Amino acid sequence: MKAANEISASVIGRLPRYYRFLCELQNDGIVRISSGELSKRMGFTASQIRQDFNCFGGFGQQGYGYNVEQLKNEMASILGLSTLKQAILIGAGNMGRAVARQMNFAEMGFRLSAIFDCDKNLEGLKIKGIPIRPNSQIAEFCAEHRPDMAILCLPQNQAPEVVDELVLLGIESFWNFSHYDIHAKYPAANVENVHLSDSLMTLSYKIKNRENR
Amino acid sequence: MKAANEISASVIGRLPRYYRFLCELQNDGIVRISSGELSKRMGFTASQIRQDFNCFGGFGQQGYGYNVEQLKNEMASILGLSTLKQAILIGAGNMGRAVARQMNFAEMGFRLSAIFDCDKNLEGLKIKGIPIRPNSQIAEFCAEHRPDMAILCLPQNQAPEVVDELVLLGIESFWNFSHYDIHAKYPAANVENVHLSDSLMTLSYKIKNRENR
Repeated sequence: MKAANEISASVIGRLPRYYRFLCELQNDGIVRISSGELSKRMGFTASQIRQDFNCFGGFGQQGYGYNVEQLKNEMASILGLSTLKQAILIGAGNMGRAVARQMNFAEMGFRLSAIFDCDKNLEGLKIKGIPIRPNSQIAEFCAEHRPDMAILCLPQNQAPEVVDELVLLGIESFWNFSHYDIHAKYPAANVENVHLSDSLMTLSYKIKNRENR
Repeated sequence: MKAANEISASVIGRLPRYYRFLCELQNDGIVRISSGELSKRMGFTASQIRQDFNCFGGFGQQGYGYNVEQLKNEMASILGLSTLKQAILIGAGNMGRAVARQMNFAEMGFRLSAIFDCDKNLEGLKIKGIPIRPNSQIAEFCAEHRPDMAILCLPQNQAPEVVDELVLLGIESFWNFSHYDIHAKYPAANVENVHLSDSLMTLSYKIKNRENR
């Protein structure tokens, strides 16, 4: 079993997908699965799957396959889904509202505890029962509640100032929907960027090259 | 220069990021950049960048660096951003509305031409000037307008039936926000999946393992 800092970003990037597939298998009533069958369903090679799992100490007995529920629980534990983590959302525009309403935060151990927006007209409105507060209350809220993570759904030009403030307030982890490059200024921060336009551009490439077939 | 089908998914996956960085460099007034400098800013190795660019025939002269505008335009052309592509959106819930309002489709050559939802109460409401139509009009619209791509922002349990219909209507490309696995049933489809919860789980892992340091 490897220490967390020895595990590559690409292995870590595959863990959520394993977890998702295992949840689906469990919902379908499947109790046990071989790495071969898992490989067929997920599109990874069986040896890739075994290698990935070996980073965390294995999980399976040769020839017996994996117990789906047990493996799912192991994955949840590795991913820290059962650790309670407090999140705040900055930006209650279209994307912020969609994220707040759509995501099942509790399922992943997150609790969305506050929502902030610089638009004073939104103050006091609620999303999923959580009132929208003005950005001027970020400092006080963070000092009192010590959130673990901030979700950034604000325009790129507003992001630098807000991130500076959040970092000073001790926030180290960001789920970043803005296109602001947090790592360039704060290389030690935990950042997951969501670049929806990258995904759409990749699809554009595929459409173009499909037409040229 | 390689044929499109010889270029690996990981190279293709990096193209939007190159494009984004080049747009930012151009906005910052930078005219020329070396692969070393590009590497420092993007976090890829210089040799990785040269290898990636060589898939498309190079672009640079040894020792002279890259012309930012020219390289940006080349990337746009490779990504098919200047090719007009017609898109339809299925699902006008929180995420569908956020995607319709937030994304700059035109910048990537996409035109969002219709929005559908199974909720009859939404019929006739408009998002960015585009009226929401009932799902029962999907077939007629697609037969007449032949869209290139469908954006799926509908619940996973509604996705299989809608995808079956869209594939029959000749749609081959999907920007998929639902968790339905289109490739399992249609391996030849062009699919870009957006799994926001995967990204959140990865952040959960990073938070957990940061705390354990």
